[in-house]
Amino acid sequence: MGPAPIPVREPKVVTHIVDERTRTLQKPSSAIITAIQADPKADLRRERSNASFASRELAALMVGGEANLVLREKIAAAVRADPVFSKKGKYFMERSELYRTTLEKYLALPKLAVSMGEKDPIAVGRIIRELIDEPGGLDLHLGMFIPTIQGQGDKEQQKHWMPMCTRLQIIGTYAQTELGHGTYIRGLETTATYDAEKEEFIVHSPTLTSTKWWPGGMGKTATHAVVMARLVTAGKDLGPHAFIVQIRRNEDHQTMPGVTAGDIGPKMGYNAVDNGFLRFDHVRVPRRAMLMKHSKVDPDGTYHPPPVAKAAYGTMVFVRSDIVMNAALYMKKAVTIAMRYNLVRRQSNPGGEKSNGSHGQKGLELQVIDYQHSQRSLFPVLARAFAFHCTSDYMRRMYFRYEKTSRVDGDYSALPELHATSSGLKAYCSWATKDAIELCRLCCGGQGFMALAGFGSTFGNYAPNATYEGDNNVLCLQTARYLLKVARAVAAAGRGKGG
Amino acid sequence: MGPAPIPVREPKVVTHIVDERTRTLQKPSSAIITAIQADPKADLRRERSNASFASRELAALMVGGEANLVLREKIAAAVRADPVFSKKGKYFMERSELYRTTLEKYLALPKLAVSMGEKDPIAVGRIIRELIDEPGGLDLHLGMFIPTIQGQGDKEQQKHWMPMCTRLQIIGTYAQTELGHGTYIRGLETTATYDAEKEEFIVHSPTLTSTKWWPGGMGKTATHAVVMARLVTAGKDLGPHAFIVQIRRNEDHQTMPGVTAGDIGPKMGYNAVDNGFLRFDHVRVPRRAMLMKHSKVDPDGTYHPPPVAKAAYGTMVFVRSDIVMNAALYMKKAVTIAMRYNLVRRQSNPGGEKSNGSHGQKGLELQVIDYQHSQRSLFPVLARAFAFHCTSDYMRRMYFRYEKTSRVDGDYSALPELHATSSGLKAYCSWATKDAIELCRLCCGGQGFMALAGFGSTFGNYAPNATYEGDNNVLCLQTARYLLKVARAVAAAGRGKGG
Repeated sequence: MGPAPIPVREPKVVTHIVDERTRTLQKPSSAIITAIQADPKADLRRERSNASFASRELAALMVGGEANLVLREKIAAAVRADPVFSKKGKYFMERSELYRTTLEKYLALPKLAVSMGEKDPIAVGRIIRELIDEPGGLDLHLGMFIPTIQGQGDKEQQKHWMPMCTRLQIIGTYAQTELGHGTYIRGLETTATYDAEKEEFIVHSPTLTSTKWWPGGMGKTATHAVVMARLVTAGKDLGPHAFIVQIRRNEDHQTMPGVTAGDIGPKMGYNAVDNGFLRFDHVRVPRRAMLMKHSKVDPDGTYHPPPVAKAAYGTMVFVRSDIVMNAALYMKKAVTIAMRYNLVRRQSNPGGEKSNGSHGQKGLELQVIDYQHSQRSLFPVLARAFAFHCTSDYMRRMYFRYEKTSRVDGDYSALPELHATSSGLKAYCSWATKDAIELCRLCCGGQGFMALAGFGSTFGNYAPNATYEGDNNVLCLQTARYLLKVARAVAAAGRGKGG
Repeated sequence: MGPAPIPVREPKVVTHIVDERTRTLQKPSSAIITAIQADPKADLRRERSNASFASRELAALMVGGEANLVLREKIAAAVRADPVFSKKGKYFMERSELYRTTLEKYLALPKLAVSMGEKDPIAVGRIIRELIDEPGGLDLHLGMFIPTIQGQGDKEQQKHWMPMCTRLQIIGTYAQTELGHGTYIRGLETTATYDAEKEEFIVHSPTLTSTKWWPGGMGKTATHAVVMARLVTAGKDLGPHAFIVQIRRNEDHQTMPGVTAGDIGPKMGYNAVDNGFLRFDHVRVPRRAMLMKHSKVDPDGTYHPPPVAKAAYGTMVFVRSDIVMNAALYMKKAVTIAMRYNLVRRQSNPGGEKSNGSHGQKGLELQVIDYQHSQRSLFPVLARAFAFHCTSDYMRRMYFRYEKTSRVDGDYSALPELHATSSGLKAYCSWATKDAIELCRLCCGGQGFMALAGFGSTFGNYAPNATYEGDNNVLCLQTARYLLKVARAVAAAGRGKGG
């Protein structure tokens, strides 16, 4: 006799009643299961108390001292207390909602940063941004638009644009990559043709492939953009230069006449950011829309090349040092999730079920961290998280030293080494971090695959670091070229000495 | 003088008029850009016509002959013609819509498969499933529920359940993994306690960690489940056995009394599948709900262990050979996207801008495929796609040979090698494929990151293969153990001969 066939109609509401006899029968079975149960919270507490070093001292060391650590805790508490920064439901949101709520966080950031009453609200803002932990529609405004104006605008241009930028009266993005060209910047096809009679540039997208593609914030958020376009004056193509162009009206946020812009669609990650496209139909901008700290165009169209050929590389180096810093941040996040899970998760006991599980009663399964495979996977990532932290600190200091000597003394001699170092580190750290996030996920078994574990979004949000701001493979070649050049110079000097 | 300040009010509607003078000024600039433009379609045509082999012959070889290739083309045309199978808008859908439209495709599958008028509609259905190219809510019904009934149900049970399964009168899933245990199956905590008086089992979830977690289709789709639970009869814990339990009512799809079930939430991929959770509160099922091909429980509670200890491993081996086959499929898909893009994408020309670009006019940029880095990345993936194709064919034949000898002759001697081979191949192929998809994405630069490129969903949908059906690291150890055992046996035999 097989099981009863499925009834065709079932009663609409059924109360589930469990009788005493059934409960009595179940009890011994449940006892078999509950006889040996670990307490994950106790596991975590014990592991923490077993540390062979003062963890608070280490934390203080990493953020530059106890005072900074206290400040961070104060900021974290304030962020936690403000519902606008809540991450609740984040993994369940569709894209438009994720975009909106993330933007709200960035818009609430300045007020909170100022309200903390610290001397340096910018530094406080940076910590809040770290805690928001999601790239948003304002990222390019903060990370590329403002630094480009500061790095490539002359004093007058900075004075004009910066107050509007910091008050968020305008929101900018950085439009360099096109549908047809990314890594090969000289191939960009957008043109800016100078009209000496009107003292204006005509910004134009002459081909489909000249469409600007990817700028973060371009989809919806931005009102302005730094547009990299080939400067053409007196019939001569002078290569890519930076121009500030208004994209949307402040009044109603509609695109400006002659401008077509929108969102490029969903991505593997970064979905809180409205990466966009941008096209120009003979759009006129004033001569002074060109950022003129390094190169200049006179009213009559005369072009003045930059006094130092690669002076504009500074911004690029700054952004790459940012990527190295982010590598450390993302690595720390991923390895923290994975380590904690590997401490509280117990699975099997190859020593026999009756043998002593790690730190516990007889018969307990082993904590996953006690398996060699888990240690071999996670400990190097943990070590690397610390190493990347120190490396990014070093890289950042190296940049600020250069920034000062180049600005104050006009000394650009540190640029080649800085450029080679930041290129190589950007490539190495972004690859290593991307792979480490995926390894940490795999170390969490099935649970690592759930959105709530955080690995999917962490990977998706970090992954583009291997591609943008210079494809990693190309950057490796640039660093290698520099190293060979230095090696050759050393060899030549050696020969000189010997001769 | 800086640029004009931003006007406070702008007119609501502005017609963008480009005067003749502006057009005339722009023309020479546009000419600079359009002078050298490649035609991606021509590039692709030329590359295809340059093949040194008959590509149709290769395609036929891979699907088992020209007749099969023609059939595939016929099926593909039918799928393309039926709007229910359309992939339009897929990457823009939120999860519930993706779930619904994917389920609609699976529900339309049987009708289309039968309508093709072929001798083997099951084989046709398999090809349609390949073309749907998205795991769906019916996957576990087709890939685990039915095979488990066929592999572990006795003749009577198969006769009872199979017709309902194939007519989709019931939809099943396979509930093995729990919140607390995945790889370590003996640690499962759900119990099935036999009540000899009523000839029923009491299925119960005694702990939080005993909650079934992950079954595909459990969130919404399934009415039934094969539940792996520890069989307890006469007070003895006999380890995990398979039981068919009704989860939802056929009438209104509400959960059955004593059953709690739902969706576990969003994941890194696989979001068209409603992976779910499942708990039992003293749920009674008839004695014959236990699948009894291998082990049995008599009405009086007497337990009969399986005649061959590991006979039930067959289903597991079958599913792993499926994963190897999928590895080949996913690898082919990823490398096809990447190869095509690397053929039509042109970027830079390190030989100097005036040198001859690959296959084209002077000054053209190089096709990316002509860079060593692209070839070194993609050619091994392409080769591996073919190798995995052949490997999965071999693995599948090996399984069917075993399936026949074990079923017809009761000969299980091929099982150890089959188990070791399928474990090792599952681990190797799923890791290699996961990494290859990511490598292919990186070879497509920024565009690879867009959802529309297909890598994100391909990676997300394939990634769990490294974890489910046995974590890869554990499977590697199992294969290694088998190899050492064989090596030891060979060594012992050698010593025997020598002595």
